[in-house]
Amino acid sequence: MLHDPNRVYIFDTTLRDGEQVPGCQLATPEKVEIAKALEALGVDVIEAGFPISSPGDFQSVVELSKAVSEPVICALTRANKGDIDAAVAALKFAKRPRIHTGIGSSDMHIKYKFNSTREDILARAVEAVKYAKQFVEDIEFYAEDAGRADNVFLAQMVEAVIAAGATVVNIPDTNGYCLPELYGSKIRFLKENVKNIDQAIISVHCHNDLGLATANSLSGIINGARQVECTINGIGERAGNTALEEVTMILKTHHDLNLHTNINSKHFRQISDMVSSMMRMPVQPNKAIVGQNAFAHSSGIHQDGFLKHRENYEIIKPEDVGVGSADIVLTARSGRHALKHHLERLGHELDKANLDLVYERFLILADEKGRINDEDVLFLANEVLKAQVQ
Amino acid sequence: MLHDPNRVYIFDTTLRDGEQVPGCQLATPEKVEIAKALEALGVDVIEAGFPISSPGDFQSVVELSKAVSEPVICALTRANKGDIDAAVAALKFAKRPRIHTGIGSSDMHIKYKFNSTREDILARAVEAVKYAKQFVEDIEFYAEDAGRADNVFLAQMVEAVIAAGATVVNIPDTNGYCLPELYGSKIRFLKENVKNIDQAIISVHCHNDLGLATANSLSGIINGARQVECTINGIGERAGNTALEEVTMILKTHHDLNLHTNINSKHFRQISDMVSSMMRMPVQPNKAIVGQNAFAHSSGIHQDGFLKHRENYEIIKPEDVGVGSADIVLTARSGRHALKHHLERLGHELDKANLDLVYERFLILADEKGRINDEDVLFLANEVLKAQVQ
Repeated sequence: MLHDPNRVYIFDTTLRDGEQVPGCQLATPEKVEIAKALEALGVDVIEAGFPISSPGDFQSVVELSKAVSEPVICALTRANKGDIDAAVAALKFAKRPRIHTGIGSSDMHIKYKFNSTREDILARAVEAVKYAKQFVEDIEFYAEDAGRADNVFLAQMVEAVIAAGATVVNIPDTNGYCLPELYGSKIRFLKENVKNIDQAIISVHCHNDLGLATANSLSGIINGARQVECTINGIGERAGNTALEEVTMILKTHHDLNLHTNINSKHFRQISDMVSSMMRMPVQPNKAIVGQNAFAHSSGIHQDGFLKHRENYEIIKPEDVGVGSADIVLTARSGRHALKHHLERLGHELDKANLDLVYERFLILADEKGRINDEDVLFLANEVLKAQVQ
Repeated sequence: MLHDPNRVYIFDTTLRDGEQVPGCQLATPEKVEIAKALEALGVDVIEAGFPISSPGDFQSVVELSKAVSEPVICALTRANKGDIDAAVAALKFAKRPRIHTGIGSSDMHIKYKFNSTREDILARAVEAVKYAKQFVEDIEFYAEDAGRADNVFLAQMVEAVIAAGATVVNIPDTNGYCLPELYGSKIRFLKENVKNIDQAIISVHCHNDLGLATANSLSGIINGARQVECTINGIGERAGNTALEEVTMILKTHHDLNLHTNINSKHFRQISDMVSSMMRMPVQPNKAIVGQNAFAHSSGIHQDGFLKHRENYEIIKPEDVGVGSADIVLTARSGRHALKHHLERLGHELDKANLDLVYERFLILADEKGRINDEDVLFLANEVLKAQVQ
């Protein structure tokens, strides 16, 4: 059970919610490699797969259980005995196994997906948790589509599954529908209205359909959740899940929240590259934290301010997330100050008049060429200096 | 001035904050093409460039002013006469010109970037607005690094520039530092403490360094801002700006906010592709709204629920954002229901026993191959049916 009230647990589902994405399927040895990298990163829980779904996925959970020792290894099931039996079998080598079972909680899912009633669904939820609990101590329950569920029924379901033995209750915004205030107030409602809520950890599982997964997870944490389900690079079903690197860097940057994780952020760039390349899922250059441009300063105004005092335009040190150092990229939007910085780096200390001459030519070339590299800078400087010698 | 209190204005800065990104520089004809697409999309303001920065950028503002008639054309300047003169000259053909001038507002920027004092910066801000106002009626003022500025000083600055003639006041979170609650409360503070605030529109300009640009913009709107500065695909300096498609779809999906824009969301996929290809900035498959996978359902649980009732897993209709229809992608995580859907689409109505046989082979092939296409499905079906004939 939870000891440090300010500790936030990181539940990584790159190998389950991420891996089920079209084109992202991995062979077992690749999953083992990523799992070891996640262990080195410091995640608390690895969701290793959905054993009943296919023989390959079953085998991956077996192999990950053998390969990893620190994090909890978690297997997904629906709320039925067949799924749970498969998960129990797949987890037999896990040092710290967890079963993640659950069922729909919104009226829309109950009616249109299960063609059932609230009472029946509640009974099936409790039965699944009790059944799984016979084999594994650590049981996480997901209340699918909780984002659109009625809060009073959701609270009833959460209370019942905790009483049945659930150690973690996952409140997914399955469709990425919630706004941060709505999602946070849902978590607060459970904190305040479920009388055995202190016997379990509340988990947030948010999807990014409206671009709000990270903000919703944060809102959940601020309102009492202490586990975040997330993936490297934010991959996952449709528009993906909460990005692990974003939510953890928010906690690291905003000390006033007084919350911490076990994540070593220096691994971010490396594990981001590994997941992107193995899963053939490109990371866009403007992706927060791990995108190629995340620390690249290109406009003149920004470059000038950055060179005067890096905190003017930098809230995260690139080294803290495993990136060498911030780039000052030269384009037609760069100012004299940035050009001077590169000229000096390349050995040219020019006076103001010469700098102006080089800058004038630089802008014309940059308008034509886009990005200006070191060779271009040297060429321009030599041209100006040569003209003066003659 | 603002008439409809529930109307949110969309200020697109793809061609300024987006275009200054390394590798994204465009030639003038390409900018004109994007500007026309933005006009068709229904944006209210197009930030066309930073005229003083280079001759090419100056010329682009001239050409965009001629090419576009509906949206306001806006040109960026720093708070000095030279910049403003260039902007005025560049905007001479604009039907509805706007000058966007401003200066740092945080103590960090004032001290380390300008080596100045609050009093001096305030005077320069007022002077720039008054100067620009002689030439152009519509003046937007940006209080750079407002995200980290002292709220009392920021309110003083905003009041002074509105008194000097500013019609829009932009409160940028220049470094993407703010959390939604912090940013929203800053906007609320201005709404409540600046006595002439009703004479101007408050604009939000958020960066995505912590993955919160969209959530911060939303928080700003909820607290009284009525203009959002954003870009197609969320491109922009470092981790980018608020994604236009995300913030507008939030307003469209959440009717209870009772806020609306002039955006025709059916253009999203097309303009996203255009900007991505011209600027050579890939959009990751899991990007919200416009990513290749944004509407692709791959897990068995989701596919099954989706086929029963699409609202189970879909909060936005793909057609509404210009995407053909949702994909049911076949992988080793797909269930029988999805396989059956594709078999029927391809002309095979199998009984339960045969479906089970095909599904068994399907899972083995999918574990090996990843994504299963129509040819694979037909091959598997024919194999099973052939075996029975023999």
